[in-house]
Amino acid sequence: MRRGYVVTLPLGAGEILYGLGLQLMSLMQRGTKKTLRVNADPRHDAGDSHAPVPFYVSTQGYGVLVDTARYITFYMGGRTRRGESAGKLSVETTSTPAAQNLPQAYFRRRFGESSEVIIDVPHASGLDIYVFAGPSMREAVQRYNLFSGGGCLPSLAGLGMLYHTDSSFNQDQVLAIAADIRASGIPCDSIGLEPGWQSHGYSCSFTWSDKFPDPEQMAAKLSVNGMELNAWEHSFTHPSSPIHKVLEPYSAEFEVWNGLVPDFALAEARKIYNDFHAKEHAARGIRGYKLDECDNSDYTGGWSFPECSEFPSGMDGEQAHCLYGVLYQSTIEDMFVQQNIRTYSLARSSGALAAPYPFVLYSDLYDHRVFIRGVVNAGFSGLLWTPEVRDAASEEDLLRRIQSMIFSPFVLVNAWYIKHPPWKQVRTEENNAGRFAAGWRETARKCRELFELRMRFIPYIYSAFFRYRETGLPPFRGLVMDWPEDPQCWSIDDQWMMGDSILVAPVVAGQNKRKVYLPSGVWYDFWTGEKRTGHQWVAVDVPLERVPVFVKDGTLLPLAQATLHTGDPQARDIEVSVYGDGSQGAMLIEDDGKTCNVFKGEYNRVTLRYDPVRRIGLVNRSGTSKVQGYNIRDWREIGSR
Amino acid sequence: MRRGYVVTLPLGAGEILYGLGLQLMSLMQRGTKKTLRVNADPRHDAGDSHAPVPFYVSTQGYGVLVDTARYITFYMGGRTRRGESAGKLSVETTSTPAAQNLPQAYFRRRFGESSEVIIDVPHASGLDIYVFAGPSMREAVQRYNLFSGGGCLPSLAGLGMLYHTDSSFNQDQVLAIAADIRASGIPCDSIGLEPGWQSHGYSCSFTWSDKFPDPEQMAAKLSVNGMELNAWEHSFTHPSSPIHKVLEPYSAEFEVWNGLVPDFALAEARKIYNDFHAKEHAARGIRGYKLDECDNSDYTGGWSFPECSEFPSGMDGEQAHCLYGVLYQSTIEDMFVQQNIRTYSLARSSGALAAPYPFVLYSDLYDHRVFIRGVVNAGFSGLLWTPEVRDAASEEDLLRRIQSMIFSPFVLVNAWYIKHPPWKQVRTEENNAGRFAAGWRETARKCRELFELRMRFIPYIYSAFFRYRETGLPPFRGLVMDWPEDPQCWSIDDQWMMGDSILVAPVVAGQNKRKVYLPSGVWYDFWTGEKRTGHQWVAVDVPLERVPVFVKDGTLLPLAQATLHTGDPQARDIEVSVYGDGSQGAMLIEDDGKTCNVFKGEYNRVTLRYDPVRRIGLVNRSGTSKVQGYNIRDWREIGSR
Repeated sequence: MRRGYVVTLPLGAGEILYGLGLQLMSLMQRGTKKTLRVNADPRHDAGDSHAPVPFYVSTQGYGVLVDTARYITFYMGGRTRRGESAGKLSVETTSTPAAQNLPQAYFRRRFGESSEVIIDVPHASGLDIYVFAGPSMREAVQRYNLFSGGGCLPSLAGLGMLYHTDSSFNQDQVLAIAADIRASGIPCDSIGLEPGWQSHGYSCSFTWSDKFPDPEQMAAKLSVNGMELNAWEHSFTHPSSPIHKVLEPYSAEFEVWNGLVPDFALAEARKIYNDFHAKEHAARGIRGYKLDECDNSDYTGGWSFPECSEFPSGMDGEQAHCLYGVLYQSTIEDMFVQQNIRTYSLARSSGALAAPYPFVLYSDLYDHRVFIRGVVNAGFSGLLWTPEVRDAASEEDLLRRIQSMIFSPFVLVNAWYIKHPPWKQVRTEENNAGRFAAGWRETARKCRELFELRMRFIPYIYSAFFRYRETGLPPFRGLVMDWPEDPQCWSIDDQWMMGDSILVAPVVAGQNKRKVYLPSGVWYDFWTGEKRTGHQWVAVDVPLERVPVFVKDGTLLPLAQATLHTGDPQARDIEVSVYGDGSQGAMLIEDDGKTCNVFKGEYNRVTLRYDPVRRIGLVNRSGTSKVQGYNIRDWREIGSR
Repeated sequence: MRRGYVVTLPLGAGEILYGLGLQLMSLMQRGTKKTLRVNADPRHDAGDSHAPVPFYVSTQGYGVLVDTARYITFYMGGRTRRGESAGKLSVETTSTPAAQNLPQAYFRRRFGESSEVIIDVPHASGLDIYVFAGPSMREAVQRYNLFSGGGCLPSLAGLGMLYHTDSSFNQDQVLAIAADIRASGIPCDSIGLEPGWQSHGYSCSFTWSDKFPDPEQMAAKLSVNGMELNAWEHSFTHPSSPIHKVLEPYSAEFEVWNGLVPDFALAEARKIYNDFHAKEHAARGIRGYKLDECDNSDYTGGWSFPECSEFPSGMDGEQAHCLYGVLYQSTIEDMFVQQNIRTYSLARSSGALAAPYPFVLYSDLYDHRVFIRGVVNAGFSGLLWTPEVRDAASEEDLLRRIQSMIFSPFVLVNAWYIKHPPWKQVRTEENNAGRFAAGWRETARKCRELFELRMRFIPYIYSAFFRYRETGLPPFRGLVMDWPEDPQCWSIDDQWMMGDSILVAPVVAGQNKRKVYLPSGVWYDFWTGEKRTGHQWVAVDVPLERVPVFVKDGTLLPLAQATLHTGDPQARDIEVSVYGDGSQGAMLIEDDGKTCNVFKGEYNRVTLRYDPVRRIGLVNRSGTSKVQGYNIRDWREIGSR
């Protein structure tokens, strides 16, 4: 058409569709219209997202990628063509939109008939479409992720907790809060900060301000305590930056916040940006970034580059918005790889084919229920998402949020606007005034136990990520990906699988009971060891200290000793819980956890098996890594067999 | 560019911009980015609207119309080009987006420097742009409205109250509620109903269902009581409709709710649609419509036609969305004009050049504060908007909403989901259960007094509309349109002028005092007659029964006797209030109020003047109309001179 290219693809009766990136407001995409516009603060379920991805998967076992950097629109079935309804004996009889929202009518209308996906790609005069075979939906996702280059492998420290400090803090305050966290016994692997490179404006100079007179010393002090440095930044480059002048020819037509917009599609821009970052940041101890403002706040705050602007690489602004998050990630990732540093960072935007980048999405939004759905949805599109924790409405809210987060891709306490940790005071104003809650020590203890639980799971999560890299299987994914044939799983957007064995069912504040769906098979309650039969909904008590977690029958679950940080040698002491006959086995990966040597093959694969008759565990280690490996200390049978 | 056409227009320092259609979430458009996408339920201040219009005006005294039916984007200044900031001695020093939101910085950043408007028109390979001269902003708006064909003139009954009844009501129930309203003494000119032409589905058959066995009789009974009929409909045509088959070739590629989408750009579709409407509706007493669902709920409910679909006229879906509201209005208007009937109807979508259509915008939204802003903003773009009343949070909320509404273009009690009038019970559930509020008779009395006040103002409002038609001057408009040189007026989005003499400052529930800005000159409190000096903010007490209304010095304000409907001969009995020396005079229009004969010149212009020395009023009548004219009964001096 004059306005672009239109593609239609067939859709069978009963097919359900998922994906299209970080869709925070809905899980099932069949029957919806989604325009994939990059938008920092989506409030409608209309496709706007930090990370829209033109890729969807079907319960029929295939995936479709549309190769475009345009704001494209998907009509995911449910449309009828001129005259089509007249040809049918019976036509829709529901009389109001409200009635059509009833689940039964919804399912019938949206899924009950064969239909078509209509894809509207403006401005294009042709298009490449990739269809990924299954046979299952899960395998289609795996193939998509492998096509992207395979899933990322985080640094080991990246899987620990990142505490992002108040944005106003100087070097001494950052060190003081790090010491405070260590004193509290709460595990923490990284300290995040705003290094003051916005001292001249909101755009960045990328030079340390005088609030940080000696970043190397700060990094060294943190390192002694087993903590790494993570730095906040965005890419818009202030006139005061040393790279401003050289970057100018390789930047976009318009500035943002008076800063240049680097054209990261150009090798020159990447090199200028990265040489400076390597010298000023990585060499001074920065091991990760929180990449802000790359998600087109132009639709909310009026701050970004116009869609109609030009980039020297030839992109226009619309294309640049679609690609900006991924190009920015890949630029930063390149820099770290050149320094042989493995990072695990944060970014506020992503897009298609992003699985290989070790970046986790975050947001300025903060609804816990929406955050939970984000974890589920991100897994369909090669993305990772953190349900980060900041302030909270109550102690209960804080604990519930932390419980979701410790079973998510990234543990981020994003205290950028509170001077003290949220476990001392959840209320922002009180917190910043230094007035701590009456029972804060008890709250801190409960939080500590949760963060410790995360530490115990890290070896398990790490090997799930290794599998993400090798096989494309998302380490965090919705139940429907593993059980697409089970209609109960189609609409579950508040439970997810972590790895192959762990089913997580988060709880939000105010819930004092929840129903959990256990797919077919046998499951064990992680907390009590109680055995439950699957293929049913079970009602679960949810006392404040517990988030429902279930373990699949046959699992060997390697749990580490809880340490203050991943670098502690005791973090390699493992106790294996044996669920049922343990026949699923387990795999652990040993490597240095922090360089890229693992990608050259420097790692060991540790295979765990269990002989339920002789009741002994079997450990098989293969590989070339010389690192101090895991120490399997104990095997423990859980529940009745 | 490959993606379309980009236009830049200069913008001076200190220029403020307004318009872009029914922008419900902001008044001043300078510094914003707005994408004019038709969207039934906008939640972001990003340009989505029921009625986006590619027209803006400047305090420098000109207007710009971009002649397009695309979702275009306006960047309304505030952008800097590559390297521009580096060339300045001092660059923005505010350090966070939050700080930039402070009013002072906001004004400086957004208005303080010369800049440019960038207009991004996708898919276009060329463009017509109309610039409307002033010299004032108000005159630029007038020229735009005249270019559109001049403002609409409502039927006289249309300016009275329309009570839209519960959507489930049958003929007897409609008559019963009409009788109930008459018994209450609350003025009402029209009864709205859903005639059951959705009995086969949500799309429309346009035939009366068996709930309405004798519509003529119903209309006749209402007519005896001075009430007209208004019917709800949308345009999507159900297979069971008698016009379905003939309409099919002139309808769009896709159906909506299993109904055909008429291509109203085709004479054939309009004729089919209108012949049926004339015969089945107008001939049976329908004098107005509530045109629903024409505002692209595709971005919210997933219900409309795709942007990429094709219409037989050659429009694509995006163009059709931009034009649908106006084409639908003009189709219905044509039908009425052919029957020599003057309507004043409702529509949920509009667009550019719509001033001549006697349709008022309404919405499914319901925030009172937003509704107030809607009245102000609509006036910049040739639109009319009603802050309709439905249920309410409290009696206070109900009264405050009615107070805003009676000084607005349309008085709509939209009780489509409540079985009893809101003055009997504001809470939906209680209302539908027939449980009335304890003090409802007192509430009804207060409501009646407000609706009576509306009735008294109708001759004044009618002549303001006549002037809208003759001169393009919006009958309801923001203060900045009359006082563009006064910075205090720039940001006032909760006060408006009704005609030339009346300043309205609505109050929302919870406010028990408000500040009102009185522009330069002398003003009189409508309620007390107290004289106030303008060019200042005044604090006003706002007891529940009063909405702040001020009258301009020199005004002759003709107020009618309050009647139950506009057809009552006593509605032509006028008392003239004289404010100050009455030197501004006044004008009244006499005509039949219900046919199109007025447009052929059948009306009288009644000019009122006052001699403050001799203290006598002077009436001059010219014209050809033979209707029973206004009866000027009294002249009353208000306040001290």
